Amino acid sequence: MDLIQEFGLEVYTQYTTGKKVHHVGGPHAKVRTSSTSIPALSTLVLLDLSQLVWKIDRLSSTVSVEDPMKTPNAQELDSMTLHSYIEKHAWTEEMKEEMGVCSRVVFGMEPNQMSFLYFIMYAAAAGGVLCLLESTPGSAQEFRVKTLDCTAALCPQGGTQQLSERLAQQIGRESVRLGQAVTAIWQDAERAKVMTATHSYLCRAVIVTCPPHLAAKIHYQPALPIQREHLTQNMPVGHLMKFVITYQMAFWREKGYSGEIVARPSAECPLSVTFDGTSPSGSAALVGFISGVQAYNWSSRELSERRDAVILSLVKYLGEEAASYIHYEEKDCVFQMYSALCCQDWALEEYSGGCPVNVMAPGMLTYYHPSLCMPCGRIHWAGTETATKWCGYMDGAIQSGQRAALEVLARLCPFTLTQEEQEAMQAAQNQNHDSGPCQHLPSTSHLRRALILTTLIMATALLLAQPQLCRDWIGQARQVVLRRFALWQ
Amino acid sequence: MDLIQEFGLEVYTQYTTGKKVHHVGGPHAKVRTSSTSIPALSTLVLLDLSQLVWKIDRLSSTVSVEDPMKTPNAQELDSMTLHSYIEKHAWTEEMKEEMGVCSRVVFGMEPNQMSFLYFIMYAAAAGGVLCLLESTPGSAQEFRVKTLDCTAALCPQGGTQQLSERLAQQIGRESVRLGQAVTAIWQDAERAKVMTATHSYLCRAVIVTCPPHLAAKIHYQPALPIQREHLTQNMPVGHLMKFVITYQMAFWREKGYSGEIVARPSAECPLSVTFDGTSPSGSAALVGFISGVQAYNWSSRELSERRDAVILSLVKYLGEEAASYIHYEEKDCVFQMYSALCCQDWALEEYSGGCPVNVMAPGMLTYYHPSLCMPCGRIHWAGTETATKWCGYMDGAIQSGQRAALEVLARLCPFTLTQEEQEAMQAAQNQNHDSGPCQHLPSTSHLRRALILTTLIMATALLLAQPQLCRDWIGQARQVVLRRFALWQ
Repeated sequence: MDLIQEFGLEVYTQYTTGKKVHHVGGPHAKVRTSSTSIPALSTLVLLDLSQLVWKIDRLSSTVSVEDPMKTPNAQELDSMTLHSYIEKHAWTEEMKEEMGVCSRVVFGMEPNQMSFLYFIMYAAAAGGVLCLLESTPGSAQEFRVKTLDCTAALCPQGGTQQLSERLAQQIGRESVRLGQAVTAIWQDAERAKVMTATHSYLCRAVIVTCPPHLAAKIHYQPALPIQREHLTQNMPVGHLMKFVITYQMAFWREKGYSGEIVARPSAECPLSVTFDGTSPSGSAALVGFISGVQAYNWSSRELSERRDAVILSLVKYLGEEAASYIHYEEKDCVFQMYSALCCQDWALEEYSGGCPVNVMAPGMLTYYHPSLCMPCGRIHWAGTETATKWCGYMDGAIQSGQRAALEVLARLCPFTLTQEEQEAMQAAQNQNHDSGPCQHLPSTSHLRRALILTTLIMATALLLAQPQLCRDWIGQARQVVLRRFALWQ
Repeated sequence: MDLIQEFGLEVYTQYTTGKKVHHVGGPHAKVRTSSTSIPALSTLVLLDLSQLVWKIDRLSSTVSVEDPMKTPNAQELDSMTLHSYIEKHAWTEEMKEEMGVCSRVVFGMEPNQMSFLYFIMYAAAAGGVLCLLESTPGSAQEFRVKTLDCTAALCPQGGTQQLSERLAQQIGRESVRLGQAVTAIWQDAERAKVMTATHSYLCRAVIVTCPPHLAAKIHYQPALPIQREHLTQNMPVGHLMKFVITYQMAFWREKGYSGEIVARPSAECPLSVTFDGTSPSGSAALVGFISGVQAYNWSSRELSERRDAVILSLVKYLGEEAASYIHYEEKDCVFQMYSALCCQDWALEEYSGGCPVNVMAPGMLTYYHPSLCMPCGRIHWAGTETATKWCGYMDGAIQSGQRAALEVLARLCPFTLTQEEQEAMQAAQNQNHDSGPCQHLPSTSHLRRALILTTLIMATALLLAQPQLCRDWIGQARQVVLRRFALWQ
């Protein structure tokens, strides 16, 4: 937000007014809608959500984002996948599916591909697990950046891209070399040499900002410490495909929908989530993602197949009007984001290889985590994966860039640092000694409290009204316990 | 064994006569010895071992090594780490530690770093989980290769290395380019171009045999399919350090020890396992490994520290004589393996980066496995990780080389294939349709039956002799169940 202010940019809040569509809960799930921030779930699943989010947030509040090894029971939490935790602690099958959808939407990844400790560290860095999912104040999906100085037809500087553009202008366009992929970084006592296919650049320090799986492809001389190699070779990156569909008008708003859809993966429906993507000037659009195993299944199909399936799903969830979209283009329409249906698969870009973030597989965080940020000679590491606040987001990317820049300045010309910067540097170095959680978003706990209260009231009302349901439920619970007992025997 | 015979080489069996030392079971564990193939464990832990090996082998017998997706419940088995499975199914803390030692010895890796489905697939490819650990007939540690045509002082052709040397002679030394690391492979409709820092080679097909994490570092044009990229970027490689210590005489044999030690990781003892490494000509030696988290902890220390700690441990387990070793050298003594203490850390070699094998993190096998062998245009993939029998071993490496060579021949000059080769090729292609397990080692089941019988007899005898123990044990079991019940509530 500081940078947005510095560059004179503006944000607008994500449109969330109206009904949200929710379609999760097995192949026979009903399509439900809800107008509040509490998801459209049955009472039992709401209770399950409350207890699971409560457990995860409680664990998350014990995580040391800066040094996960200091988390109580770190080894055990890093030894299981997110999937294993959910299997153990979720009561209902619907909640398990729900968590799969969350993992797909947030990480572009299945819950069985990441360490549970990593998941709660990621949640802690965002201020709580619900912050990752919500578009309410303080949450990940709260703001969009207004597109200022671009025409509608061709807009490379639109949205958040404007930040990169302004930064490039600030340091001088001639200092940014595009189309020069780094193949090797050599260093000795004197300097570092950064090599591309055609050029080489001598420098006193290097900041590598690309994601760990791409940093691992660069050839380093001398070789990097084995701990760093082991780490970056084992940070799976997600798989997301983004689509934007433009319409003459935001018909869903008129029908009382917010444009937010959360859907279970199925053979017919490729999308996991959509949001309203209408610009402040009124160009109507829906933005959505095909993610995780769905991206894996759908990426090899024809674009027209995906498009037709997406449109069919939208018709199912929002009505016939969804079929009358303006038009569609793919990949090379990346600069025309808000005037076309763009199906953008980051996994197919050689220098992305996936999206949105690298996570950690089990057993990496407790052994290898310090290697993620620790400079290797003249090489310093930035990128959102190295952030301690909003790790995985643009916010984290900026935090990590500032931290790495300070590291280099402190090394090469410490006298140029302001007192404030010196203090920031000192604070960053002391972070390892501060094992407290990152609790900068009180809104989470409000939402959580509201959620718990509502579900408790609803559950009590329901059980009072339908005592049979209560008996059935206790019966089921007893059976689960007896089955566990029998298995154990 | 065919190749050994073809080259006129000879094998000798691993020396296993005498007591094996076993030191596992928490910080206060007793050092135990055993002269049979049944490990020196308490009755309860032996029972636990039996039930756990039985469960794992039963699951392992349902695995389709060629197509793990066909394994019943594949998704669930691939969604948990080996650690999670052990936590759930081992009864005793000692057995959990025991499985950690096994994972470290076999994979150079902690049980929390690999998919459980991968582990049982690996065991299935070896004929059962005990085959991975034993030196009995049909097991991984059965044979060593005799060193034939080399002097004692400098012996680059010694041991199994002789196979590579003879293969190189067979195709002509001039066809083998050493010191030419491949940096890029480009291909088009006409041919492939393999590039090193100084040379490039044009060819009609390429077989890449290096481990997946190194194959991932090569630059491919056009880029490889994203499934292959995701897979090879997420196959962690183990961390083993090998040491060989030579002595004037095999004093342990005279004292009735086999030279086999299995030890729990501790601050004092770096080693996980040792074997007798005495040559057929009588040069006395012990061979051992520092592995997994121990290798991680000890690799950054001074060599002399490691050596002293290893020797101290050997004195503790085998007696004072262990202190009088001949001498020690490191790394550049790799050609003098049997006349010195060599401490060899494969992780520090740029073109190894770890040892002995790449495993799969959870969630990779069920999505991405076919990409491991599937040719990408003119590029074919070999290496022990792609094998279906003794995956991870030299046997598997040879199987995979033969399979890849046949693939290339079938493509470039199918008429040169013998009928036998055509059949082998056909069989390999049909493997995907054959979901039966790899059951080529009946000896496993004998050992397992012997183990189960012995532990049952011992347990019955013990419980008859000490009824109090039985009551205690049932009491403990009841407490565990009640605790689980309470936790669930």
